[in-house]
Amino acid sequence: MKLLTKLGFAAALAALPSMGLAQEAEAAPDINPYIFTTLLFLIGGFLVFWMAAGFAMLEAGLVRSKNVTMQLTKNIALFSIAAIMYWLIGFNLMYPGEWMIEGWMGPWFAITALEPVGLAAADASLDYASVGSDFFFQLMFCATTASIVSGTLAERIKLWPFLIFVVILTGIIYPIEASWQWGGGWLSEMGFSDFAGSTLVHAAGGFAALAGALVLGPRIGKYNKDGKVVPIPGSNLALATLGTFILWLGWFGFNGGSQLAMGTVGDVTDVSRIFANTNMAAAAGAIAALLLSQALYKKPDLTMTLNGALAGLVSITAEPLAPSLFGALWIGAIGGIIVVVTVPMLDKLKIDDVVGAIPVHLLAGIWGTFIVPVYNTDASFGTQIVGIVAIGAFVFVVSLVVWLILKAIMGIRVGEEEEINGLDMSELGMEAYPEFSKG
Amino acid sequence: MKLLTKLGFAAALAALPSMGLAQEAEAAPDINPYIFTTLLFLIGGFLVFWMAAGFAMLEAGLVRSKNVTMQLTKNIALFSIAAIMYWLIGFNLMYPGEWMIEGWMGPWFAITALEPVGLAAADASLDYASVGSDFFFQLMFCATTASIVSGTLAERIKLWPFLIFVVILTGIIYPIEASWQWGGGWLSEMGFSDFAGSTLVHAAGGFAALAGALVLGPRIGKYNKDGKVVPIPGSNLALATLGTFILWLGWFGFNGGSQLAMGTVGDVTDVSRIFANTNMAAAAGAIAALLLSQALYKKPDLTMTLNGALAGLVSITAEPLAPSLFGALWIGAIGGIIVVVTVPMLDKLKIDDVVGAIPVHLLAGIWGTFIVPVYNTDASFGTQIVGIVAIGAFVFVVSLVVWLILKAIMGIRVGEEEEINGLDMSELGMEAYPEFSKG
Amino acid sequence: MKLLTKLGFAAALAALPSMGLAQEAEAAPDINPYIFTTLLFLIGGFLVFWMAAGFAMLEAGLVRSKNVTMQLTKNIALFSIAAIMYWLIGFNLMYPGEWMIEGWMGPWFAITALEPVGLAAADASLDYASVGSDFFFQLMFCATTASIVSGTLAERIKLWPFLIFVVILTGIIYPIEASWQWGGGWLSEMGFSDFAGSTLVHAAGGFAALAGALVLGPRIGKYNKDGKVVPIPGSNLALATLGTFILWLGWFGFNGGSQLAMGTVGDVTDVSRIFANTNMAAAAGAIAALLLSQALYKKPDLTMTLNGALAGLVSITAEPLAPSLFGALWIGAIGGIIVVVTVPMLDKLKIDDVVGAIPVHLLAGIWGTFIVPVYNTDASFGTQIVGIVAIGAFVFVVSLVVWLILKAIMGIRVGEEEEINGLDMSELGMEAYPEFSKG
Repeated sequence: MKLLTKLGFAAALAALPSMGLAQEAEAAPDINPYIFTTLLFLIGGFLVFWMAAGFAMLEAGLVRSKNVTMQLTKNIALFSIAAIMYWLIGFNLMYPGEWMIEGWMGPWFAITALEPVGLAAADASLDYASVGSDFFFQLMFCATTASIVSGTLAERIKLWPFLIFVVILTGIIYPIEASWQWGGGWLSEMGFSDFAGSTLVHAAGGFAALAGALVLGPRIGKYNKDGKVVPIPGSNLALATLGTFILWLGWFGFNGGSQLAMGTVGDVTDVSRIFANTNMAAAAGAIAALLLSQALYKKPDLTMTLNGALAGLVSITAEPLAPSLFGALWIGAIGGIIVVVTVPMLDKLKIDDVVGAIPVHLLAGIWGTFIVPVYNTDASFGTQIVGIVAIGAFVFVVSLVVWLILKAIMGIRVGEEEEINGLDMSELGMEAYPEFSKG
Repeated sequence: MKLLTKLGFAAALAALPSMGLAQEAEAAPDINPYIFTTLLFLIGGFLVFWMAAGFAMLEAGLVRSKNVTMQLTKNIALFSIAAIMYWLIGFNLMYPGEWMIEGWMGPWFAITALEPVGLAAADASLDYASVGSDFFFQLMFCATTASIVSGTLAERIKLWPFLIFVVILTGIIYPIEASWQWGGGWLSEMGFSDFAGSTLVHAAGGFAALAGALVLGPRIGKYNKDGKVVPIPGSNLALATLGTFILWLGWFGFNGGSQLAMGTVGDVTDVSRIFANTNMAAAAGAIAALLLSQALYKKPDLTMTLNGALAGLVSITAEPLAPSLFGALWIGAIGGIIVVVTVPMLDKLKIDDVVGAIPVHLLAGIWGTFIVPVYNTDASFGTQIVGIVAIGAFVFVVSLVVWLILKAIMGIRVGEEEEINGLDMSELGMEAYPEFSKG
Repeated sequence: MKLLTKLGFAAALAALPSMGLAQEAEAAPDINPYIFTTLLFLIGGFLVFWMAAGFAMLEAGLVRSKNVTMQLTKNIALFSIAAIMYWLIGFNLMYPGEWMIEGWMGPWFAITALEPVGLAAADASLDYASVGSDFFFQLMFCATTASIVSGTLAERIKLWPFLIFVVILTGIIYPIEASWQWGGGWLSEMGFSDFAGSTLVHAAGGFAALAGALVLGPRIGKYNKDGKVVPIPGSNLALATLGTFILWLGWFGFNGGSQLAMGTVGDVTDVSRIFANTNMAAAAGAIAALLLSQALYKKPDLTMTLNGALAGLVSITAEPLAPSLFGALWIGAIGGIIVVVTVPMLDKLKIDDVVGAIPVHLLAGIWGTFIVPVYNTDASFGTQIVGIVAIGAFVFVVSLVVWLILKAIMGIRVGEEEEINGLDMSELGMEAYPEFSKG
């Protein structure tokens, strides 16, 4: 979202009468900006919802077939948990003081309420949008953060501890760190800039995944006794490609909707800029990764190309508005390069990230956040670093503690035999492709 | 759709000048509400169209690989037939007296016509929306009804009798029962309430499927001689999960578009409520089914979870507007529970429903329709029961007669050998996955 | 797009004050039409983007599993290249004189620039839409043209020569021929009519594919020594069906967005007509192909049905607005028939078109363009033929030359052994389905 948080947004708009919002103030108020912005949230929201399907397909395609059912189960469950937790706690934790019913434990624990049916124009925030649409849109960002984690930890983590982590991540961890910026908190006051969440969503999800990967350890057989990395190819690259296209599509809503306004010429034109830049960054990330994988390995690499596109998208997410199309190109291309370069580095550290979520979401997310000041003159490199470090430290440390507690209490990793046989049969008793014999 | 039918809608709006629609009546009329509502139908319509792909993927994933090509063929054909039949007969049968060209057989048989190109504002229903957009949107509901049937009857029904049934269902059965409510018929006059079609679409499709399943009988091998149920796992759970996500996405259009208006603050805010509630019900249905399957069977069940999400969606469809988010949660969760509980009950009755469409669409549809009065004070339990029984009896009996006639005339079931070998090779000569050897 | 090009569009609108655009000219200008049309481009654009995923899935499903990774790689790469080339050259080549920064080589080589952030209403083209949204939308058409080519040439073309061709196609060939019509060039002045690009996009892509197929030759084993055609079934018909549904969905944006305006009653109603007609043509194409394949071969054919739907869509694309729904039905149905009839004819000519793109996009595209004057009285058969021939000759000849140059310089076909082993292992070293053993 823009630097303007929801709290500050109304005030800022009130100071801009020349933008046409107040033009009919004498007569009935102009309700069209409210409808347009609400519509932006609804369209943006369903597009970001669609990203949940994208993560599910990407991850199902990149794990081995013996773990596909489990990965699908985790993905649909984590989205559902996010939907419930963000309603129960997250939304009001993230935007304290707003739209709240007093809860049992005071303003920091309160269940989200929507506006009444048939809201009258006089009762609406005509300079913003429907609360329901905003909740719907924000919820999807919370869910995205959780989606990022599931890919890294695939093929070895138990279902229930993972889902308990998701409860905490979506109910507490994400809302707290996101409130520092989008809830009008200290980072936004300091001038941190993260338009649609390169750090607040993507790097945060990546830090939570990294903490989990360290506690969980690599998959059996990934790093052999000689210290060599054993490639474990994904079982279905068509699904992985579909997932990437789904994510790319959803990202138009992710970044475009984060303009948080569509009712003026300036705002809808900015949304258009964001769509065009988002697309360019993805394309540049894909091509950069394709070319670099050809140069380094003499063979083009599809999974690198897919992750390159995603890294391009993550990279532009911190500032999809201000750059020119050329800016989006080089920012996205460097995102793609980061993926190709850092995937082997993670393997050297024996951090086993099944789908490459740490390079894509954490590293490209940091890159995108860091580079914001080049095009956005309101931002400074120093503040950007403070924001990255603060969010990274908070999410990583809290996640690490939660993972360690879960490990101590119930264990987070399946047994060796279960892992070798695959989680689908050992944990779920259900194969994803029961009829296709394995080669 | 709202209780307000299209026939009643204009009158109701005319009585609400305070909502801003008439604010510029002195000058040129305000065309924006017309554009917004038309846009709602276009967006809602393409989202519901997308559900056709969702059903296709869900069903292709839940049948055995030897029947996948057939299931795909049925799905693309049934949608296409619905598109033609709803134009040829259905739309005007459902909304008698409206937008009609006199046909060969008088007003009850008439081909749908769109408005002229470049419609002038003076000739438009400025208090509603474009006829073309409305037709496009309504058509998708008709097609959805047919999609529900194909899953239940999979793996044993012949292609052509099935498609002939679809002709009758989409051209006659659905339009007649839907006209009782949305065409301003006797159910709407009595006060029946089914916002977006838990009964009119989902239970109706489920009743048609149930009639077919009874006439058709179970698949060979589904119930063995000892009376035991033999599980027949789906061949591709990644596709089934994709289908569920597609349906979930499409449902925002299904329920949100059924607000039938987006040009006022109240309407767009209501659409936002509907989106948020729809999402919550799906999430709650998924989590309820996941937890209950874990509790009952000690293993989480992905297909139950997917069907739980869908049952949550069906449950909230009768009233996605009035409930609070907590209301959507418990209504959806009970939908999910219904699926887990009733799937084995159907098997005890030896009703072989391949994809679980009867629990999901028929039973959760009844549940959702029955529970409407809890949040919608204009509805009564008695009237809801009358509506469910009337639509159920009509659709079930007429469908049963049609299925029996088709069985008598041409047979509806493939031969035993064809069924065992799979419909793909025996009926179509084309495998869906010709290269993957079967385990 | 409409016959009105962007250049002519503003002038035409200015002559239509009665349509309400100028109604508030005394006060502040009405910004809503600008917002609506921009929104149309954004929604239309993301839907057409989605078609890139549709082509990827369709093609991945119709090639053999040993070539799936390559086909996916080509699809994500070609879209990314189109995004870059259309920005670098294409957009300004297609709309010369507009929105241009002077480039190193003068006005015919200039990098596209977007409007500034926070555009003021006074600086906007209030009678049209945001440049950014228009660029975003137009870019997707350019990419679609390239997508068409990749399917025909699958399973034997080398990656890099193919991608170099895409650079030229999307940077130069498509923009030049499209500018003849949509850039206000000689074809538009002559009265050629191709609303959304049956010829400018689809037949053009088909001609480029045909040239490539002739230079490349058929796959090994497709035509055996006795002159018989050996059917090579696709490896995954579920993916192919998914791809078709994706394309169908995206086509609502393709045709609907080509109205290029949504801010008046007439325009949004026209968009509705287009949606309804587009859907009808697809349905009719599918049913016609299904029935005809049953009649000719005694077995319904799923891939023919899928291609029939696509041919219906291509057929209506030249004029989705003017026909009645019945018009859309027969135009689309004939499109479907063309596919069933011409697929074997191409095989007789030993033109090996892996996915049927030439019948679907080239032949149905010509059909749709030719038939425009029946419903659109501004068009004439003579001019339509001139346009088809001119575009066809230009695209075919230039493509042929490029293919021949590429063949001479670097070779465009993989070696015989590589082709037999599959491009995935020989060129990429990565299988799409590494665990599924091949039958």
